Amino acid sequence: MSLERRRILIETLNIGAQFLKKDVLITGGLGFIGSSLAIKLCELGANVTIIDSLIPTHGGNINNIREISERVIVNYSDLRDIEALKGLVRDKDYIFHLAGQVSHGDSMLNPRNDLEVNCIATINLLESCREYNPNARLIYTSTRQVYGEVSDLPVSESQPVSPIDVNGINKLSGEYYHLLYHRTYSLKSTVLRLTNTYGPRQQIRSNRQGFVGIFIRQALQLEEIKIFGDGTQLRDFNYIDDVVDALLLSSINRDCYGEIFNLGALKKYSIIQFVETIQKILPSVNYKVVNFPEARKVIDIGDYYGDFSKFHKVTGWNPKVDIETGLKHSLKFFSEHPLEYWK
Amino acid sequence: MSLERRRILIETLNIGAQFLKKDVLITGGLGFIGSSLAIKLCELGANVTIIDSLIPTHGGNINNIREISERVIVNYSDLRDIEALKGLVRDKDYIFHLAGQVSHGDSMLNPRNDLEVNCIATINLLESCREYNPNARLIYTSTRQVYGEVSDLPVSESQPVSPIDVNGINKLSGEYYHLLYHRTYSLKSTVLRLTNTYGPRQQIRSNRQGFVGIFIRQALQLEEIKIFGDGTQLRDFNYIDDVVDALLLSSINRDCYGEIFNLGALKKYSIIQFVETIQKILPSVNYKVVNFPEARKVIDIGDYYGDFSKFHKVTGWNPKVDIETGLKHSLKFFSEHPLEYWK
Repeated sequence: MSLERRRILIETLNIGAQFLKKDVLITGGLGFIGSSLAIKLCELGANVTIIDSLIPTHGGNINNIREISERVIVNYSDLRDIEALKGLVRDKDYIFHLAGQVSHGDSMLNPRNDLEVNCIATINLLESCREYNPNARLIYTSTRQVYGEVSDLPVSESQPVSPIDVNGINKLSGEYYHLLYHRTYSLKSTVLRLTNTYGPRQQIRSNRQGFVGIFIRQALQLEEIKIFGDGTQLRDFNYIDDVVDALLLSSINRDCYGEIFNLGALKKYSIIQFVETIQKILPSVNYKVVNFPEARKVIDIGDYYGDFSKFHKVTGWNPKVDIETGLKHSLKFFSEHPLEYWK
Repeated sequence: MSLERRRILIETLNIGAQFLKKDVLITGGLGFIGSSLAIKLCELGANVTIIDSLIPTHGGNINNIREISERVIVNYSDLRDIEALKGLVRDKDYIFHLAGQVSHGDSMLNPRNDLEVNCIATINLLESCREYNPNARLIYTSTRQVYGEVSDLPVSESQPVSPIDVNGINKLSGEYYHLLYHRTYSLKSTVLRLTNTYGPRQQIRSNRQGFVGIFIRQALQLEEIKIFGDGTQLRDFNYIDDVVDALLLSSINRDCYGEIFNLGALKKYSIIQFVETIQKILPSVNYKVVNFPEARKVIDIGDYYGDFSKFHKVTGWNPKVDIETGLKHSLKFFSEHPLEYWK
């Protein structure tokens, strides 16, 4: 076993110890990914502080942290207000910056709002860290959307970016800011480009955050699932636990400073295959392939699946949960919590 | 002569006729480039409206339009206020979007302000056009700074972008927004990436807007010119009249819709050669090569000169004014207007 590989394994095995009694700040910590990360960090013995403004359309849900509500501090401030941030970033060992507007459709309807909640918020966070906590580890969750329509698959980080909606443009700016503050002020920032993340606590009530949530809600409500386009578009899906692992691994690895990494899956699926996996679990589910609504079509990116070998090499990360297992967990979770999430 | 070439020539020869009695809006029209464009458009018989908020550090100067003050409408509004814009974009044939913060150093000191005056302003303009004037021709002036440090010279538009300061990031977002609104809403937008533009009306009083202005002021004040680094960094310089021609040509050519173009020069010069050209004109000028101040060094991009063949091919544009002629005009202008510009 190479020394490098050995180091990665030891870091991975010690992942728990790295967070014990550590102070962690999670922006957007009441959202799907933020709350899942908060729960895991509480298990690992960290002191977790959450910032979330609970903007109604953004996906934050106080039910997400019910099981840890006694153990986390929740601060209901808005990252657009830098004064609140200055105090909150102090003395934190880790800062996970997950807050933001993530709906591509909404970003086109209200581009200024998307700019403010993504870019102004990010600049405020970075400026606060620069001034009050330049040693914190800082992880920014970006999105595959920054690549736009891609020609070479799977997509590696060296492919040129070409965002095709306002949200993609603003998330890309957020990446650049993080890298700039690393290069210029030595902030220990890392960018992860997430792909389709799914799982318990995902926002499925509205249609704002991607087709996975919509399909799960339609399945639970026994509605016919509507697939836009022809359903052959390829995607990679990450179960939430794998994404939480990726966030933790990236945060404890020095080789991640100033770097951008794709996440991705071991297998890719067409959207129809994804729905058919739901159907396997809930046989009463039906689906129909329908034309793209015009407003969605212009911002559709076609096939996408990412090459995550760079991240694997540096951290040893591999997604572990296959899609059938992940969807089973998700459907079980949501069927047990109808009022909190979809009814 | 090919038909294509003929068409370009005819368009170029008819450049004047294209603007006669046309309604033109120039954002940042009291600045260096905006005012020079306004003067030229007045000569061509256009009806010019200027928007400028005259933010003290941004370079707007009411003296810039003294010779056309009776013939233009000046609106002192701020593009961050969308309500003012909605009325102003209506019924305009051409909109040149030049307003913004252009100081790289200032963008690092106040990143949020740079974001607001560049990105929020641009989104407001595009949203206003989408709603109230989707047929206007729309030209956005961006900057070579979006490329960051480059490896292949000369730099063509196909080189990956990699901005290395806040201003570069925000100008790049402005480009993406313009292209997005072209693709999504068919706005007739074009992006020009300017390189070092110099000439009469340039802001030379402060050190905010690049070394050319600083050198000219130091020369006029008979101060020793201070060159940072070793002075061998290569640059391409465009005289203002050539840039105004580029703006006009791009605005009347349908093949420019939705495209990005570099400007550039026929010859490149080291910074020392540039200063030595000033010395040729004003022999009493001295210079000294000094170390980079730390804050400037981290955002220096090294050598840069652009490949403008794409723009030449589409519009026939070539820069016409050599550096000695251009600098002579500039030094003469500024020595005739000390109080308005540098004393």
